[in-house]
Amino acid sequence: MTGGTFDKEYNEINGSLFFKDTHLPEMLKLGRCKLEVDVRTLMLVDSLEMTDADRQIILEHCSKAPEERIVITHGTDTMELTAKTLGQANLPKTIVLTGAMVPYKFGSSDGLFNLGSALTLAQTLPSGVYVAMNGRYFKWNNVHKNKNTGEFEEIRNAHAKAQRRKDF
Amino acid sequence: MTGGTFDKEYNEINGSLFFKDTHLPEMLKLGRCKLEVDVRTLMLVDSLEMTDADRQIILEHCSKAPEERIVITHGTDTMELTAKTLGQANLPKTIVLTGAMVPYKFGSSDGLFNLGSALTLAQTLPSGVYVAMNGRYFKWNNVHKNKNTGEFEEIRNAHAKAQRRKDF
Amino acid sequence: MTGGTFDKEYNEINGSLFFKDTHLPEMLKLGRCKLEVDVRTLMLVDSLEMTDADRQIILEHCSKAPEERIVITHGTDTMELTAKTLGQANLPKTIVLTGAMVPYKFGSSDGLFNLGSALTLAQTLPSGVYVAMNGRYFKWNNVHKNKNTGEFEEIRNAHAKAQRRKDF
Amino acid sequence: MTGGTFDKEYNEINGSLFFKDTHLPEMLKLGRCKLEVDVRTLMLVDSLEMTDADRQIILEHCSKAPEERIVITHGTDTMELTAKTLGQANLPKTIVLTGAMVPYKFGSSDGLFNLGSALTLAQTLPSGVYVAMNGRYFKWNNVHKNKNTGEFEEIRNAHAKAQRRKDF
Repeated sequence: MTGGTFDKEYNEINGSLFFKDTHLPEMLKLGRCKLEVDVRTLMLVDSLEMTDADRQIILEHCSKAPEERIVITHGTDTMELTAKTLGQANLPKTIVLTGAMVPYKFGSSDGLFNLGSALTLAQTLPSGVYVAMNGRYFKWNNVHKNKNTGEFEEIRNAHAKAQRRKDF
Repeated sequence: MTGGTFDKEYNEINGSLFFKDTHLPEMLKLGRCKLEVDVRTLMLVDSLEMTDADRQIILEHCSKAPEERIVITHGTDTMELTAKTLGQANLPKTIVLTGAMVPYKFGSSDGLFNLGSALTLAQTLPSGVYVAMNGRYFKWNNVHKNKNTGEFEEIRNAHAKAQRRKDF
Repeated sequence: MTGGTFDKEYNEINGSLFFKDTHLPEMLKLGRCKLEVDVRTLMLVDSLEMTDADRQIILEHCSKAPEERIVITHGTDTMELTAKTLGQANLPKTIVLTGAMVPYKFGSSDGLFNLGSALTLAQTLPSGVYVAMNGRYFKWNNVHKNKNTGEFEEIRNAHAKAQRRKDF
Repeated sequence: MTGGTFDKEYNEINGSLFFKDTHLPEMLKLGRCKLEVDVRTLMLVDSLEMTDADRQIILEHCSKAPEERIVITHGTDTMELTAKTLGQANLPKTIVLTGAMVPYKFGSSDGLFNLGSALTLAQTLPSGVYVAMNGRYFKWNNVHKNKNTGEFEEIRNAHAKAQRRKDF
């Protein structure tokens, strides 16, 4: 766990969004998940505030962990940057990053759906670094969050679409 | 869609559980799913009341569908029987059955998690028939629902556990 | 607390509805309720199975309780019978019965709304026995659950409506 | 309706909270409310940004409305100011202000509970202006939101508590 929208909560005293604790154990229970999962919270930060040093910490933990199959929950805004940091390290592991567009606690979150996706992708995909969002999965070097729609897409598509828009 | 707990609702007039319509489109929207999915409701039945004729209808639809990757939502009680019917037909397609222990509408359902699992498994697994439950996946000829715990497990494990219990 | 739909839960092993425990403390917390409330569970039964002996137990507890303002959660199907038993006893207390059409745990329940109603009615109404449902309140001797619509209504209206229906 | 936390939603593109539309009709339906209610949205503002001009608009609408019993949903931060504006006008009507600590859409809101309270208070209290929060009700000239706890309390109590704290 690294934080992100996934784990944000609403502070009813001042009306802001904040991190209290990860909801992952609760979500695994809700999903009746019977995989052996070891949950570790590395940090609880908004991904817009995640630094290069934070990304090095994530890389180091992935590298040293005894597990060969890892899911990382992460804010969506800079998920592609962390994916790149991990992908370039070329670890002999299957690493899947996922997140949520709406906090799990807010009742209409995509978090549980994405978590189901990411946990099965970690079981079936070969070594490499992937992003699991929108029911799809992407390789670390071909993924981009479209800031206008909030959707993840291939870089090629993103460029092609931008190009088409320019042409008009 | 074939029905099952997944799509049950509460009838507030007489206090019973019933089927009104599938919740799949709503769930795909909640999961911000951007896959191209063609949703078809074949039937809405409790899987304990599903007949061999119903299973033949499901097989026929899987066989004739132009798609090579198919997810089937199904009641959990006889999911292994439908998986067997489909598995023995040996279609050149990836077919993933999934369901839910608690109706989607009841707020603490595993349905969204399982749907995320099943949709990604349909994209990554080779041809064959599988069951996706509890964050895991099983081949059609090695899956069994434990009626006591409500969990899905491999047949070998189920036998081994029953054996161990007898030994004491 | 006496049970009723209010406190029913879904048994995911056998698909039935059952009582585990009252959700009242959780609901009071959700409502950020700061009233001094003493919660007592007298029984957890489906109101269709409530006997005259059960109603006598409820009456006895209302009579002996030191509180002068009491809210009773109750199944909706026989709420009018318990209201009658209590009303005829003519206790010098304000007693408000309420319930829910859908279990609190099922996500689309009217329970929290009805609880808010009942707790404020207990504070503002004079001595007597009342039913609080559908955002309205009724005196014990003028309330009836319409089994077709699931709504509570005055007896006079119920008769008038039935009469009008006959006239056609 | 005037806005407030009650009606805020989460913008999943930029992670901020915003108003889209009032959720009142949906909440009345969830509460199976059968009262005749005429819903009017006067504004959708954060109560910290509500101006004196806004309060005059609310007063004017209360004054001109044909109804004698009115519920106003309002942000909690300045609810006591609007209550004062309305209370000093001394209209021959029962007016109940209520709100929520957590947006209705966020799943753990007190909004439905408070709405149930406010609608029944509007039916039972004599002419005057009241605030309904925390399962309690307060007269307009004796209510105060404690910014530290988020709870509403009588002014006398608030002073007494502050005094006691100073004494130590």
